[in-house]
This record gives sequence, structure tokens and C-alpha cells, in this order.
Amino acid sequence: MPASSVWGNNLRISIFGESHGPAIGVVIDGLPAGEPIDEGELLAQMARRAPGRDKSATPRREADTPEIVSGMLDGRTTGAPLCALIRNTNTRSGDYANLQQVPRPGHSDYTAWVHYRGWNDVRGGGHFSGRLTACLCMAGAICRQILARRGILIGSHVAAVGPERDAPLPGPEIPDSLLRRLSAAYFPVIEAEAEDRMRAEIERARMDCDSVGGVVECAVTGLPAGLGGPLFGGVESLFSSILFGIPAVKGVEFGAGFGAALLRGSEDNDPFRVTGNGEIRTGRNCAGGILGGMTTGMPLVFRLGIKPTSSIAKPQRSVNLETFREEELRVHGRHDPCVVPRAAPVAESCAAVAALELLLTNGALVPAARRGEEHA
Amino acid sequence: MPASSVWGNNLRISIFGESHGPAIGVVIDGLPAGEPIDEGELLAQMARRAPGRDKSATPRREADTPEIVSGMLDGRTTGAPLCALIRNTNTRSGDYANLQQVPRPGHSDYTAWVHYRGWNDVRGGGHFSGRLTACLCMAGAICRQILARRGILIGSHVAAVGPERDAPLPGPEIPDSLLRRLSAAYFPVIEAEAEDRMRAEIERARMDCDSVGGVVECAVTGLPAGLGGPLFGGVESLFSSILFGIPAVKGVEFGAGFGAALLRGSEDNDPFRVTGNGEIRTGRNCAGGILGGMTTGMPLVFRLGIKPTSSIAKPQRSVNLETFREEELRVHGRHDPCVVPRAAPVAESCAAVAALELLLTNGALVPAARRGEEHA
Amino acid sequence: MPASSVWGNNLRISIFGESHGPAIGVVIDGLPAGEPIDEGELLAQMARRAPGRDKSATPRREADTPEIVSGMLDGRTTGAPLCALIRNTNTRSGDYANLQQVPRPGHSDYTAWVHYRGWNDVRGGGHFSGRLTACLCMAGAICRQILARRGILIGSHVAAVGPERDAPLPGPEIPDSLLRRLSAAYFPVIEAEAEDRMRAEIERARMDCDSVGGVVECAVTGLPAGLGGPLFGGVESLFSSILFGIPAVKGVEFGAGFGAALLRGSEDNDPFRVTGNGEIRTGRNCAGGILGGMTTGMPLVFRLGIKPTSSIAKPQRSVNLETFREEELRVHGRHDPCVVPRAAPVAESCAAVAALELLLTNGALVPAARRGEEHA
Amino acid sequence: MPASSVWGNNLRISIFGESHGPAIGVVIDGLPAGEPIDEGELLAQMARRAPGRDKSATPRREADTPEIVSGMLDGRTTGAPLCALIRNTNTRSGDYANLQQVPRPGHSDYTAWVHYRGWNDVRGGGHFSGRLTACLCMAGAICRQILARRGILIGSHVAAVGPERDAPLPGPEIPDSLLRRLSAAYFPVIEAEAEDRMRAEIERARMDCDSVGGVVECAVTGLPAGLGGPLFGGVESLFSSILFGIPAVKGVEFGAGFGAALLRGSEDNDPFRVTGNGEIRTGRNCAGGILGGMTTGMPLVFRLGIKPTSSIAKPQRSVNLETFREEELRVHGRHDPCVVPRAAPVAESCAAVAALELLLTNGALVPAARRGEEHA
Repeated sequence: MPASSVWGNNLRISIFGESHGPAIGVVIDGLPAGEPIDEGELLAQMARRAPGRDKSATPRREADTPEIVSGMLDGRTTGAPLCALIRNTNTRSGDYANLQQVPRPGHSDYTAWVHYRGWNDVRGGGHFSGRLTACLCMAGAICRQILARRGILIGSHVAAVGPERDAPLPGPEIPDSLLRRLSAAYFPVIEAEAEDRMRAEIERARMDCDSVGGVVECAVTGLPAGLGGPLFGGVESLFSSILFGIPAVKGVEFGAGFGAALLRGSEDNDPFRVTGNGEIRTGRNCAGGILGGMTTGMPLVFRLGIKPTSSIAKPQRSVNLETFREEELRVHGRHDPCVVPRAAPVAESCAAVAALELLLTNGALVPAARRGEEHA
Repeated sequence: MPASSVWGNNLRISIFGESHGPAIGVVIDGLPAGEPIDEGELLAQMARRAPGRDKSATPRREADTPEIVSGMLDGRTTGAPLCALIRNTNTRSGDYANLQQVPRPGHSDYTAWVHYRGWNDVRGGGHFSGRLTACLCMAGAICRQILARRGILIGSHVAAVGPERDAPLPGPEIPDSLLRRLSAAYFPVIEAEAEDRMRAEIERARMDCDSVGGVVECAVTGLPAGLGGPLFGGVESLFSSILFGIPAVKGVEFGAGFGAALLRGSEDNDPFRVTGNGEIRTGRNCAGGILGGMTTGMPLVFRLGIKPTSSIAKPQRSVNLETFREEELRVHGRHDPCVVPRAAPVAESCAAVAALELLLTNGALVPAARRGEEHA
Repeated sequence: MPASSVWGNNLRISIFGESHGPAIGVVIDGLPAGEPIDEGELLAQMARRAPGRDKSATPRREADTPEIVSGMLDGRTTGAPLCALIRNTNTRSGDYANLQQVPRPGHSDYTAWVHYRGWNDVRGGGHFSGRLTACLCMAGAICRQILARRGILIGSHVAAVGPERDAPLPGPEIPDSLLRRLSAAYFPVIEAEAEDRMRAEIERARMDCDSVGGVVECAVTGLPAGLGGPLFGGVESLFSSILFGIPAVKGVEFGAGFGAALLRGSEDNDPFRVTGNGEIRTGRNCAGGILGGMTTGMPLVFRLGIKPTSSIAKPQRSVNLETFREEELRVHGRHDPCVVPRAAPVAESCAAVAALELLLTNGALVPAARRGEEHA
Repeated sequence: MPASSVWGNNLRISIFGESHGPAIGVVIDGLPAGEPIDEGELLAQMARRAPGRDKSATPRREADTPEIVSGMLDGRTTGAPLCALIRNTNTRSGDYANLQQVPRPGHSDYTAWVHYRGWNDVRGGGHFSGRLTACLCMAGAICRQILARRGILIGSHVAAVGPERDAPLPGPEIPDSLLRRLSAAYFPVIEAEAEDRMRAEIERARMDCDSVGGVVECAVTGLPAGLGGPLFGGVESLFSSILFGIPAVKGVEFGAGFGAALLRGSEDNDPFRVTGNGEIRTGRNCAGGILGGMTTGMPLVFRLGIKPTSSIAKPQRSVNLETFREEELRVHGRHDPCVVPRAAPVAESCAAVAALELLLTNGALVPAARRGEEHA
């Protein structure tokens, strides 16, 4: 039962809560003081992850209005740990009555039963519920405001749902306007028609009482060069360690990623060039903004491979943990046939938390002006 | 300049050294006491990573005989930190004279120049050199002996070199004999003819003064179920944070990985079954041995996407950091056209270190018997 | 603004909240699952720390009924992070209006003003308030129940208030009955008359518009031998790192502590002996239960040097941070003339948290039986 | 067997080695790049700790010339982990033959036997040997050069040996010249005659086949105000966690420390004042340079309570771990009757490491100029 839900070093987030318990929340420690946080923007980001927006998502509606109980005063961070929490409401625990005995394939039921020796809260997946990603979104929504004020923008899109693909993020440079549009969208895509194809694919999965996976592609622009370090201090280690905390993520790749396996060095090595105003940039971005574990100053680009939702209505084979006999399982309840669109704001949130940690660890975050000297 | 080369929590490895400095090495803290370590096996694992074995690798020969200067007595671990180091010899620093001024595309030269403000040791890549992976192999070779004694085996193969592919690891169960064969091979493949095709591809890249990437697939068998945890305590976060420490790794995926994006839930959810002797297993292993961040008891399977070697003989475009003018760069020196075969033992080593950390963190490692009671 | 309020490794506590903000609380991650937690005992421990019990404490009354919003189900821990929070009520912010400009001597006002660049919540000391120790008590009250079930008891007494001293804890063995009595008391002392003398000393300080410091002595019994480790893994490092988190603690010593400086080795070395039932014990306990950073199995004994409350009614010299002129400061509001009695349960709480972390890190905590097999 | 010998966060030190093994050493990760390190100064600091200088220390002579095998180039740090190691020579293992069976009172023999299940290297105390403090001195000697260049000085003195006391460090301000003198001395005292009295006391202990403890007082000047944080991020937690890593330290106190228990608040609260050049200082320094866990800008002052050397020639009672019978033990070999003078440079070294970590964690270390721009 080791500690599992604390992440980070100079910036630390601690996530708590269970799907059907009284509340979920996050404590963010290490935030710079004096940073204005707009609660409207916070709510807007959380709404992107919230279910029930359209047919692609679960009909369960979450009010999900976070309450910030510490670390803020008069709209600014105080520098003390910021705790934001959300009360759980509208929980129908009855739906999950038999999950303890017969674990859902593809879900954490069986492994949690072993790990916690049967004592974990199984209602709605407990602490393993995708609902906990709302806490990541709260943390991310706060961090991204601090980053945006310093010219660091984050956006993502649904790169694939099953076999249906969106156009890739443009490169090597990514316009701010695109990231702003994507990071405000509920179903962020680069090509509008991709959304239609993807929604159709999701609807097909729903009709089959099944689910479908996909890919999220995310970019962080505006990071200065030289952040990170060799070996385990690399940007990839930092980002992947939080990104794999998102349930359903089974793969993380940066830049050309697994595609680099098919490239020659002469294709994958991004040539350096000098811009008109004397900046060093690269002519393409196969590196995804990272060389030697350190930022190049080019957009940091990563993709997440997301498995299909494990809760499906189709009958599945499982084992009764009391009788140790095989059984057919039918999962009832409200489940997304595809979590990929809702994973996009979660991916951005993790990127925001990781990027702020990266800046802090490298001593590269310019703090807010002293109080009273803001306009000096 | 944050600390970058320490990994782990209950088991901690600290890596030091620069390619052309006096020595490289690793300190391993938290090893269980009383564990016999066979230095022959240690050398055998290190030889798999060492360059100069055949045409696919750099002609530089490394004696690379590690000296263990602490933590061992009479062939057994003492429980104190174990430091193993290797003296650097046969270094030809002259080859790297102009790298400071003109960074190699795809390499850490530019980002390190920014990060260290020009003070890093650039000879041979310094602390960013692939040579540092020898330290991972030392740590891994020690950890895997401790694991093997407890029935936990690790093996990997070259799944792809450029477009040439090996057969995938068999599933859901993986025979010990296969892992033993792979983990002793210099160019580990499942199908013998794959090696020929891959070697030919590597040779083509060399002839083109170019390099080629690939994929390593690795498995860990024998881990008990229930290790790991939710959110950031997940097995994927733990493993990826060390695996991305391997230079050239640009993607990490578990089980079906990015391929899960193309699956329906009914295809990706592994049905549970009961074996004749009452064990719970799954009928396939799309999960790669991990559900909800915790081990299922099935083989833990992951793949690494490895980019082509960045040092290539072909002329490339770069920028002179003193003049800020673009230049053509020709990289001289001894470089692998493909590091993928040598990355296999490094991947296994990281897996061994991570698996031992996982066991320790979950209180799941049975310690050696008390001294004098070994045969009781 | 580095993260400051997270402690621990395998057991992690994250504390949040500000004295006059909406709430304070703690997240405890890494608790073993299946542990019954008695909320009555939790409240009883918290009541010991709460102010307003008698004249020695501030008249401010805190309801301080914690709400556990995660990590508990049906009276048992689930193994997920446990978050307990307390709403702040009865806050009179007006009292603190001029503290920002004129820092109180001996308090964090000036250093926090520098650290947070003026953005911290100064009301009631904000995140620096002694009120935050209620969060330590919540965490400790939970951990000590888990420990007590395994025969590990914790108790402390007010060893000194100013020049008035209690008898020391008896040694080398400490009866369970004494620890039980002390750990239930509001003003824990070994000799009843010490309380009278100490209360008189506190009253004298109050009459002088002044405050007084003291010493808390604490013991943990029932820890098995061999927990801890050399160098920074020592029990002293672990315990001191949390104990110095208690505001007003300026010294921590173990066993003979600073008194050992006056001893000869022949007096300080505790001779080993064998008990009737074959246990190894020591004939005295100058080591305070720790040798080489590891537990001896004897009672772990430590003392805390606690400074007088910094908020006093007497006029003091300070500096106006806006005018940079020296000023006389009169601190108004409600302040304890002596926090030492209330520090005793806080010290015990820190010891409980540290002892549980110590057991977990050493793989020495026997987990609860599997659910359904509790009585097998 | 948890990891024990790694300390720090943004600056990390990993210590390895056993008293009679091949070598001891330290890896320092996170050092800023481009810092000149004078090896003469390094040797001078190490010589202060080395035994055999006079009658107060063990006659064993250690050459103890460290070899830096990484992280340095042309006399400057490269920013990569710096590993310094010392070969062990002149080891006479025979002296320790019976320690495994009959543990020395006051030493780690018994607890290590339990912890490591008998597998630890007992020769000379193994990894628990005071010899390992040479590694702390190496780390400290490097860090203090980096600090001194930024106006941060560290010095200490032998405040007490048994009942013999030196004058306390002057306050509130401490002259640089005093710290420079103390930090170059083998037996650092403020009053010359104190050394004579202390040497006499040590000689008396030796004549009695006994040993004697003492107190070291240390100061760090030049730290800016505002470093550190509340709760566990406090300077006291940081410093104590490394200081208690020094064997024989049983108490750590800051400023007035345990003496604050005897003070009234009006005596302990340091009044703020403004200096002629507009700096805020305090008129005394009972706080020891720390308020609310953060530096005040005044000298950081701490004291260590050091127990008498546990290895004494006098016969002692112990238990044979094989027969479980009580025995009289006579410890042979070469042992200091008093380690306090040699503990002074170790205390300074820990302070240097902790102070550099503190600066890095607070983003308060100005890095070296870019290479080539040093004199710009």
C-alpha cells in the first residue's frame, strides 16, 4: 500500500478521493505566490473533462464546482498549499454491487482486490475511477494560468479514435491561435470533419455495446531551451511519470516517437538554423522539443495511446473471486464508449503541472513582483 | 543544474561519469543483504551492451571490467550501498574538438550548452554519452540475479530495425527458456532470419553514412499480482521514468500500447480465467501485465521506440554557436549506425532495477535467510 | 516557494490550510488498508491539542471536528489517500491588521514577507499558524491506532515549563500504563505536583504579559529492533525531520541527548543483557532506543526544546516594512502564554506518523488480514 | 534494507563504502556548472577530519587523498555528478574478529546484526564507521567553495568536551575573520585556553580507558533572508536530517535551542532593527537565524550534542549472539577517546551541503557566468 497519489518534487500535487466517497480533491504545494487565478477559466477547463456533454460521454452529470479551501486570497495564490475539492453527488452505488466478486476484465478490480486485500472502496472504481482525473484538471487549470502569463501555451487534439485520424499538429512551429482554439474545445480536432468521423466511430462502438480507444496529441510551446537534464532528469521521464498516471494511457511518445524507428538519422536529426532575430530553431521537430532530455525551445510534442474504455455492456468472461469459478459478466451502469476526447484536457493538465515543475526545478520561473510593486 | 542521475525510492541508483573522464560508475543503495552476486554473470550482461562485437556496432573496444568497491563481501551483498565503477581507457578526445561550437543535430550538444552554460564536458558526449548505459547494465545485472532467485525472469528482443521486424513475443504466457535464450544473446531475436534482415538494414544505413532506429520489446515474468498502485504509483509511471532515462528512447508502451487505440474494448479487455492449479490468469495479455497501475501476475510486457543514432557521417546543417552562422557539419569519430541491439540489455537492466524497486516498495521481497541459517 | 508541507516517503502526509482561510486539513497517503479507525479516539486526541481548555491556553475555542472525505469506508481504511479536513470558524481577522507592516519579533512575519514577496495570508499567521498542528494531530491520531493494534504505544509529558521540571520518564523500560495515562491527559505529567508548579509559572508569565517555553519528552515503545539504517536513513534523521516541522521547536535530542556530552563512554554505553525469555535488552537506555540509526527494541525516547510563544502582549521593538523605520509593536489578540502542554499531543502525533513510516520503509508492518478472513 | 545513504533533493549526495572495503566515496549530483574547485582547499578540509593528528585522536593514519573521477574538467565543475573516492589502506581487520558475536555496547553492532540479518561487513564498523564522515567532508569541502564565492561562510568550534567549555560564538553578528580562523583549525576553539582544558579532559578519559563526549557549535553567515518554508520545508528539518546522519550526534538545536525553554518570550524574541545601510537585522539572535522555518539573514547557528566514543578499552557487559549468554567484552583496536574536535569539520561540511541545497531549492543561487563570458 505504498503512497501512490503524490507527484512532483518542487511542485507537489497530492490527489485524494474515491468515486462514491464524500469528496475528491487535490493539494498543490509549491505554487509561486502572488499569481492571479481566474476561477472562470478553471471551471471552463474542468467542464471540458466533465462527462455528459454529448452522446460520446457518460450520461452521469457532475456539477463539479471545485471549492478552493486554502492557498488563495483575494484571487491570488498565497504560496501556501492550495487545496481544491469537489463534493461527490449523484452517486448510484447499487450499480456496482457485484464487482467485488467478479472483476471486470480490463479494469483494476482484480489487481486492487489483491493489492488492498479486499478493503478498497470498489464503488465506481473508488480511487481508480476516471473521475479522479478531475483533480488533475483542477491542478492543471491552475498551473496553465501561471504558465500562460509567461508565454507558455498548451493545447491538444484527438489525433485518433480507433482507425479515424485527425491531421497531425503542424510543425515545426505551432501557432498560438491553434493551441488557444484546441484548448477551449470539448472535442478538439484540427480538421473539423475528423470530429464527425470520430463521433461516428464512437457511435458504432456504442451500438455494439463496446468501446473504442484512440490517441491524444499535445503540445507545449514557449518553454525556454535547456530545461531538464540527462538520464532520469530528462523531460521525457518527468512527463511520462505523470502522464502514465492517467488511467487508460498505455503508451507515451515524444516527437517522432515510435515512428522514429522507421527513420534514418538524416531524416530524424532536426537541422539547426538561425532565425532573423537571432534565435536558434530547428527546421523540423522530430525531437518533439527534447534533445538529451532537455528542451530545445521548439514545441514540446507528445502523444498518448489510450486504450478503449474497459467497462463495456457486452458480456465478458471473468472469474468469481469467492467461488474461483469462471462466470459471464455483464457490466451495468453509465460508461463512456470512448474517453479519448475527455482525455485531451487531462493530458493538457498533466503537461501544465509537469511544465511548471520543470521550470521550478530548473530555477527558470520568474516570480511575481513583490506585493505593492506589481506595476513598478 | 538539478540532480538528474539518481533514480528510485526504496532502491536508489546514482550514476556518475563522463565518456572521456577518468571513470564511470553507479551506486546502488537499498539492495537486500546476503544476496550472492556472480561476477561472471555480471560481466556477461555487460558484454552484451559493450560495443565492438560486430559490424553493427562502433569499433571502439571497451574493456569495461567493473570494480565493485563497496557493498559486497565474500561474494554476497552486505546491504550497504554497492558502488561499481569502470575506468575509462582508449579515449580519443581529439575527435570531438569542434562540437562545442557546432552542435550535432539530434544530439544533446546544443541543449547541454544552454543548460550548463558551456561548462559541460563535451568530449564524447560527456555525461550524455550512451556509454553511461553501461552503469545501468551493471545495476541491472546485479538486480536481475536477485530477481531470478525468486523466479522473476527478464528478457527482450530486437522487435524492429527500421522496417525489418521480428515476430512478437509469444503470449499470453512466455516460456522461461525463451527469456533465458534472449537474455544471453548479443543480437536477441525470436526468429533467426530476422537478425539477417536487420543486419542487412543496418549495413545499408552504414553504407549511406547514415543510421537507423528500431524497437525493443521486453518482458518480465514471475512478478506476483497486486504490485504498484493507482495514479502516479502505477507500474507504468515507475518503469517509464527509468526507461526514458535511456538515451534515444522516444516512446514507451505497455501491452497493446498505441495499438490499443485501434482495438475495441471487447478485444482489448483480457478475460480472466482459472488455471488447473487455481491461479487466476488472463486468456490474452493486451494489458501487458498491468491493470489499474498494478501487476496482474501475467508477463509485464513493454516496448521502446528508439530513434536512429544521432551521430552520422553524412553532412548536416547546423549553427556555429560562436558566430551564430549556419554551417555544414561533418561528424567524425566512431559511431554505431544502430544502437537497437545494444539497447536490449539496457532495457532489460532498467526493467530489473524497476522490478526490484517495485517489490521493495510493496514489501513483497522475501529477504535472504539470516547468516548461518541459510540451509535451515 | 518550494513545496514544504509534504512529509514522508512510503507514508506521505500533505498538510494544507491557513489559520483564517476556509479550512485546514491533511491527506495521508500510503496507509495500510483494512485498518479500523475509531473516530472517538481521533476526536479525543484532537481535543488534547485544542486551545481553550484552561487558563494556560488561548480563549479561542475551536470546534475542530474533522470530516474524513476519503480513504475510509465502513469505519476502516480503504488504502486510498485519507483526507481529513476541518472548517475554520470563529476567526477574527481584524486583530491582525497591522502585522504585514510591522513584523512580530520571534514570529514568521518578516521571513514570510521576504519569502512570499508579500503575498502570503498573514491573518492569524496563515499557513505558519500553530493551528496547522491540528492536521498533524489528525494524522497522528490515525497512525497511532494502527500502531497500538501492533503493540506500539506512544506517550509524552511536559518535562519542563521554564525552570519548573517534571520527573523524567522512567527507564530503561516504560510501563504501558504510564504511556496510556499520559497520552490521554490534557496536561500530561509524571508527578502530579509538577503540573501545579508549571501552571503557576505559566500564570506568572501571563501576568507579565509575557510567555514561557519548555520541554516535551516523548517515548515510543514496542518497536522491533533493527528498523532504520546508517547515515541519512537513521531514525534520528527521520524523526527530527518531522519534529522540527512543529512550530516553536528549536531542539531535538534522543536518549541522553546533549547530556551525553557530559558522560563518559562507560556511562553512556548501555550494556546488553538477556531477559528471562531470551530477549536482548539494555540495562539502561542512554541510547534512547537507537544505535547506529537503528532501533534497539528499547523505548525510543526523545525530547523537544520549545521556545516561548512569540506572540506576547508586552511592547516590543520592530521595524515598519513600508517606512523602514523602527517602531514599538503591541501584539493584540488571543495567544497562549505557553504552548508546551498542547505541544505534547503534537509531538506524539509526529512520533506516530514517523513510526508508521519507519515500519513501512523497513517492510516491518504486518498488514490486516484479507477482508472476509479477519477471524480466520 | 531501505536506501539510507542518499540525501537531498535538488542537490543529492550518495555515500558509499565500508571501513575495510576497497574504497569509500561520494557522488554529488546537482552541483552548478562552471564552479572552480581548489583541490588544495579540499585536502585541507579533509585533513581536519583525518585521525592521527595528535593524542586526542586514533593513531591510525589515513592518507585519504580523494580522487575525483567525474564531474570536473580543467579545475571546474561540469554540472554532471561529481564522484570523489578514497582508497582504503592500512586496514587491520583482525582486530574486529569477535565483534559479530559479541556486540559492543553503544555501537551499531547489535542493531546492524538484526537489520542486515548478519550479512553486513562488520570490519571496522563497515558502512557505520565514522570513517564514512570523510565522504561528508569531501562533499562539504566542495560545496563550501561554491558558497564562499557568494559570501556565505561556515565555521564551527568545540563548544564543550565533557564539562570543559569554550566561550560561545559571539552574537548577534559573527566576524568573517573568526569563521575563517575556526574553519582552518584542527582543534577549533574561540578561547585558546579552552583547548588546553579540553585536551586535558580527553587525556583523563584515555587514561581511564574511557571516552568523553561534547558539543560542537557551528555558524553559517551570509545566507539571504527568506530561504526555507513552513512545516517540513523548514531550515531546521533540512539541516537536522543531514546532521543526524553524523554518527554519535544525539541532539541538534538551533539558536537558543533547549535554552529557550528557560527564557521568557520577551527575552527570546529578537527585536528587529534597521542598519545604517537600510538592512533589517535583529539585535540578538536567539532565533539562530531562523524564524518560521525560514532564514532571517542573521547567522544560522546550531549546536550538536555528541556522545562519547562508544569503542572503549574498559571491559563492558554484553551478550554473545550465538550462545545468547552474557559476556564481558574488551574492545581492542585504535579508537579516539573523543571525536568532538574531528566532528567540527564534519558539522561544517553538513552545513555546507545543506546550505547549498537550501539555495538551490529556493532558486537563490546565482549561477556562474556562461563559459567565455566570465569576465564580461
